[in-house]
Amino acid sequence: MLKTTIIGATGYTGAELALMVHKHPELTLSGLYVSANSADAGTAISSLHGKLAGLVDDEVQPLVDVEAVAKEADVIFLATAHEVSHDLAPILLEHGCQVFDLSGAFRVKKGDFYPTFYGFEHQHEQWLDNAAYGLAEWASEEIKQSQLVAVPGCYPTASQLAIKPLKQAGLIDTNQWPVINATSGASGAGRKATLANSLCEVSLQPYGVFNHRHQPEIATHLGCDVIFTPHLADFKRGILATITMKLADGVSAEQIASAYQSAYQDKPLVRLVEGMPKLQNVQFTPFCDIGWQVQGEHIIVCAVIDNLLKGASSQAMQCLNIHYGYPELTALI
Amino acid sequence: MLKTTIIGATGYTGAELALMVHKHPELTLSGLYVSANSADAGTAISSLHGKLAGLVDDEVQPLVDVEAVAKEADVIFLATAHEVSHDLAPILLEHGCQVFDLSGAFRVKKGDFYPTFYGFEHQHEQWLDNAAYGLAEWASEEIKQSQLVAVPGCYPTASQLAIKPLKQAGLIDTNQWPVINATSGASGAGRKATLANSLCEVSLQPYGVFNHRHQPEIATHLGCDVIFTPHLADFKRGILATITMKLADGVSAEQIASAYQSAYQDKPLVRLVEGMPKLQNVQFTPFCDIGWQVQGEHIIVCAVIDNLLKGASSQAMQCLNIHYGYPELTALI
Amino acid sequence: MLKTTIIGATGYTGAELALMVHKHPELTLSGLYVSANSADAGTAISSLHGKLAGLVDDEVQPLVDVEAVAKEADVIFLATAHEVSHDLAPILLEHGCQVFDLSGAFRVKKGDFYPTFYGFEHQHEQWLDNAAYGLAEWASEEIKQSQLVAVPGCYPTASQLAIKPLKQAGLIDTNQWPVINATSGASGAGRKATLANSLCEVSLQPYGVFNHRHQPEIATHLGCDVIFTPHLADFKRGILATITMKLADGVSAEQIASAYQSAYQDKPLVRLVEGMPKLQNVQFTPFCDIGWQVQGEHIIVCAVIDNLLKGASSQAMQCLNIHYGYPELTALI
Amino acid sequence: MLKTTIIGATGYTGAELALMVHKHPELTLSGLYVSANSADAGTAISSLHGKLAGLVDDEVQPLVDVEAVAKEADVIFLATAHEVSHDLAPILLEHGCQVFDLSGAFRVKKGDFYPTFYGFEHQHEQWLDNAAYGLAEWASEEIKQSQLVAVPGCYPTASQLAIKPLKQAGLIDTNQWPVINATSGASGAGRKATLANSLCEVSLQPYGVFNHRHQPEIATHLGCDVIFTPHLADFKRGILATITMKLADGVSAEQIASAYQSAYQDKPLVRLVEGMPKLQNVQFTPFCDIGWQVQGEHIIVCAVIDNLLKGASSQAMQCLNIHYGYPELTALI
Repeated sequence: MLKTTIIGATGYTGAELALMVHKHPELTLSGLYVSANSADAGTAISSLHGKLAGLVDDEVQPLVDVEAVAKEADVIFLATAHEVSHDLAPILLEHGCQVFDLSGAFRVKKGDFYPTFYGFEHQHEQWLDNAAYGLAEWASEEIKQSQLVAVPGCYPTASQLAIKPLKQAGLIDTNQWPVINATSGASGAGRKATLANSLCEVSLQPYGVFNHRHQPEIATHLGCDVIFTPHLADFKRGILATITMKLADGVSAEQIASAYQSAYQDKPLVRLVEGMPKLQNVQFTPFCDIGWQVQGEHIIVCAVIDNLLKGASSQAMQCLNIHYGYPELTALI
Repeated sequence: MLKTTIIGATGYTGAELALMVHKHPELTLSGLYVSANSADAGTAISSLHGKLAGLVDDEVQPLVDVEAVAKEADVIFLATAHEVSHDLAPILLEHGCQVFDLSGAFRVKKGDFYPTFYGFEHQHEQWLDNAAYGLAEWASEEIKQSQLVAVPGCYPTASQLAIKPLKQAGLIDTNQWPVINATSGASGAGRKATLANSLCEVSLQPYGVFNHRHQPEIATHLGCDVIFTPHLADFKRGILATITMKLADGVSAEQIASAYQSAYQDKPLVRLVEGMPKLQNVQFTPFCDIGWQVQGEHIIVCAVIDNLLKGASSQAMQCLNIHYGYPELTALI
Repeated sequence: MLKTTIIGATGYTGAELALMVHKHPELTLSGLYVSANSADAGTAISSLHGKLAGLVDDEVQPLVDVEAVAKEADVIFLATAHEVSHDLAPILLEHGCQVFDLSGAFRVKKGDFYPTFYGFEHQHEQWLDNAAYGLAEWASEEIKQSQLVAVPGCYPTASQLAIKPLKQAGLIDTNQWPVINATSGASGAGRKATLANSLCEVSLQPYGVFNHRHQPEIATHLGCDVIFTPHLADFKRGILATITMKLADGVSAEQIASAYQSAYQDKPLVRLVEGMPKLQNVQFTPFCDIGWQVQGEHIIVCAVIDNLLKGASSQAMQCLNIHYGYPELTALI
Repeated sequence: MLKTTIIGATGYTGAELALMVHKHPELTLSGLYVSANSADAGTAISSLHGKLAGLVDDEVQPLVDVEAVAKEADVIFLATAHEVSHDLAPILLEHGCQVFDLSGAFRVKKGDFYPTFYGFEHQHEQWLDNAAYGLAEWASEEIKQSQLVAVPGCYPTASQLAIKPLKQAGLIDTNQWPVINATSGASGAGRKATLANSLCEVSLQPYGVFNHRHQPEIATHLGCDVIFTPHLADFKRGILATITMKLADGVSAEQIASAYQSAYQDKPLVRLVEGMPKLQNVQFTPFCDIGWQVQGEHIIVCAVIDNLLKGASSQAMQCLNIHYGYPELTALI
């Protein structure tokens, strides 16, 4: 049994992770932590997230002595803010922990990315270089070998799973930038008391136009520019991404079908659907459903995921399963 | 034209009032105010409530000199916190303003009500004694004559409109307390940044069980005890109240029908429906829809309103129309 | 491995059952059936319920030869209409199948119940007499021994789990009928094309007032009269029931706490919560959360469940686990 | 007073029209009609649409004698199916009625449009040629002069109001087709009993990809190709359209601002917002809110409307106001 600790346990992704650790036959929960000054410290996680009651009732501890936490754990999930992950991960790694980081702190290996998009200078370039980017269906070898897995963002997961098979097979003309329109439920903004998050204020609208951090994450890992326009909507969970692309000259629908087939035929958590996918089929599940349609030179691809699961926590657990060689769906279905 | 000022203009009820003042042919907007230390001071109201854009774009002013505000207005709507209304109303009234107060500060003429339920001692008993309780369909004489109208709470409006015809006609046995179960949209909690208000946290549940301030407001004005259980639900606007009562001995369905008919046949904003009412028929409207059914000794009555309109702002405007003798529906439909 | 067949597989409860059979280590899916004239016959269940894709892709068969179906199965779940269950169950039972019926056909052992509330005369009184009423936390012995388990309705499950500990302990004064107000998501009406079910028409409202079939089901199994008022609301899944009762003379909060504790301390799927329960904590789960509060002579109890799970399919599977002696949570968590 | 009749009165747009006719000081309601075989014939419209109760309680008549209906009316709103409008409009026009048609029957003056997208051959080319396309902010002269106004579709209204100022000013490079991603509430599908419309089945998803009728409507009236991808979502009212375009060489943000300003500065129902628009600001209103942002060669424009109002009924009434020279906002605000 691997001793597994979650830091940043009181957010929505932390709670989902706690539930999956509880279900996982090879893991035992060795600790739930929040930052030392959080008002949640000392509370049972199930009193913050009532759905965990009777399953995970452990108390959330203030994170005071990182080294002590590292020594008591084999595996650490970091469900923490970007800068917190940036600071904590190296300490945990040096103590030998296997780390799955759900933040953006180790996702992009490009010098000016962090100052520009996250507002801080990256201090741990070596760890950055060695981190696996945990897009699970596309990086199993890196995930197996790396001590640090940077779990992709929610929008990048949906977007890349939809685009990558075509991009890798050279089927799209990226001179005309892919246009990604995506809509996310409000849990994407985290568990926070803000006016913008309040039920009466949330209503369908674009945000972060031309400047969302997930644009360069997607562009870097795809290897081409994209136009990414996220939208907030008044539901709780899920992301739908609709992507419009120009095909490379002479590409046929058969080639496209074949690219998706060969990318995902052995990947149980990506489902190629007839027609177009529907959000509710993946809510509360670890799946990504993908559909597409072609007309003339253009293709529309649509992908749906649960932003807290395939877009965060279940993909983190999927990476753990891959890393340790457990069946990929363990604790997920 | 009556110069009309709204204090507490940036909340949801304030914004609805601003829209109705704009529509009202006899009113002109003389000021929008918030408390002096509010971050909203100095902002256009339409940048806080985008739906007002192009209709009411006035800047919200900090309330610094109450007397100056009083001098520039004929009518004041107080959409302020209970204690703020308690402190402001007497000043405004002494300067001759007609005041419609949407808070609970002048609703109940009972010594120990305010310390017990609002946490403050009432300092203005004379104004309290002279205030009209503005349940519009039931108090037109008082509303016409009083300089201060205490507009009822949202739950009390729905509950009393449903129960009062039967209670007044002696048709219910109040030894067995009426059971009021009501469900409200999240706007009832106001425009606030709290975790409990955040879209991901709001979900159908009871709250304030046995201790909500609206219980004694209802009980006092009805003249009998009631059991009142409010619920919060994850929609924006509206209240549905379902009330279970024991009938007095030998009461017939005809007597009940007749009591409702005679109470509301001349009241355009209360609609008696066949069968049971549906919330969406009154959302964004000033109506209260009421339906009822009898079996044996029991009656179920159901009333629906828009909590921000008939439960607050449109009832305040209805009171203004009644007070000044304007057609009752002016600015409401 | 028990061969398990679902009849009425294309509805919402049928789909949930299929998913649980898939997850259950002791069950193997031996067939999915719909009525012979259904347009769904011949379709993969996952094309009707996209969330099953990749998990259960079996084709739904038309039910033509009941005896042949019975011979191929050890266990049958009936997720069929009341009259269909009434007709099928005896045939399946006589062929030796273990039957879990999710309809109302075998729930109430009272002569005039079926003609009055279901519109048909019951033809199988002996099976009715021998059926276990599968309120899982209260009938484990009957469930273990009976070849036919009548799984309770959704409202009755929530209502009885809330009331029964107090009723059994003699803590409530049932001369004053318990008042049950309950609100259900639209899936309670089944997978159907009706105008009343259409998204634009559904809005919070009472229905079935004084004449819903679940009222006598609750009353019979509790052993006292109740006033039951169901409401429809515009969400997909879940039921919240709020119950107002008069306590018997001199009953203390401690006695109540103790009654709930002793009823549920060993029951993992009923969780007693501090304060009041919240619907989203049980949606997509097999739990029932219960909270209560006392004042003077009155008690308010609130229970929440997922109507499709604890209110139907997961309770059916829980009964199966109890009947066969499998761990109670198998395939449920 | 103009005698005004609504044919197709029982749908969602018909009900909105009835409400606006009721509010309009220059109109009197001369009839509400449905097709002769509709089950709704003979019912009060307010029993179908409860929100009309007390305002419009007229009975809906079966449409038997079109000529008689024409003779009794000055103005006809057709809220009917495309083919019905196609057949009725010429008869009504020949009897001298002013006709506002909310269907697609007279929107596009192109030979093969109707067989391809609507499945029928157009029989009334002369009326088609003389119809005004009632995009109110862009066609006031045609609307003033034409006896037949074809009110635009909901998606085309939002899309064109967003794109047209730039297209007309030559600011976009249409060699790269504008990409329109739009999301609509379920009322867009009409008042119908279908499984796809049922609350439990509706969930965010694309539909009509590459083959929705509104694509050629938009393309024809804009004068350039577009890629149009509509989505259905689980809310009742509203459309949000997000449009991604390539700018023509060297176009500046100032030019764009100026194009929008000059297009809409005198148009009270189009509001240019700072930042990006939010759906709830236009729900239940006749407004279209538009926001935009530029980066490098690309522009994202977003427009929101209420699909039943600016996308149908209130735009029809706006056209009536323009045609007859009434103040543009009459009966709308």
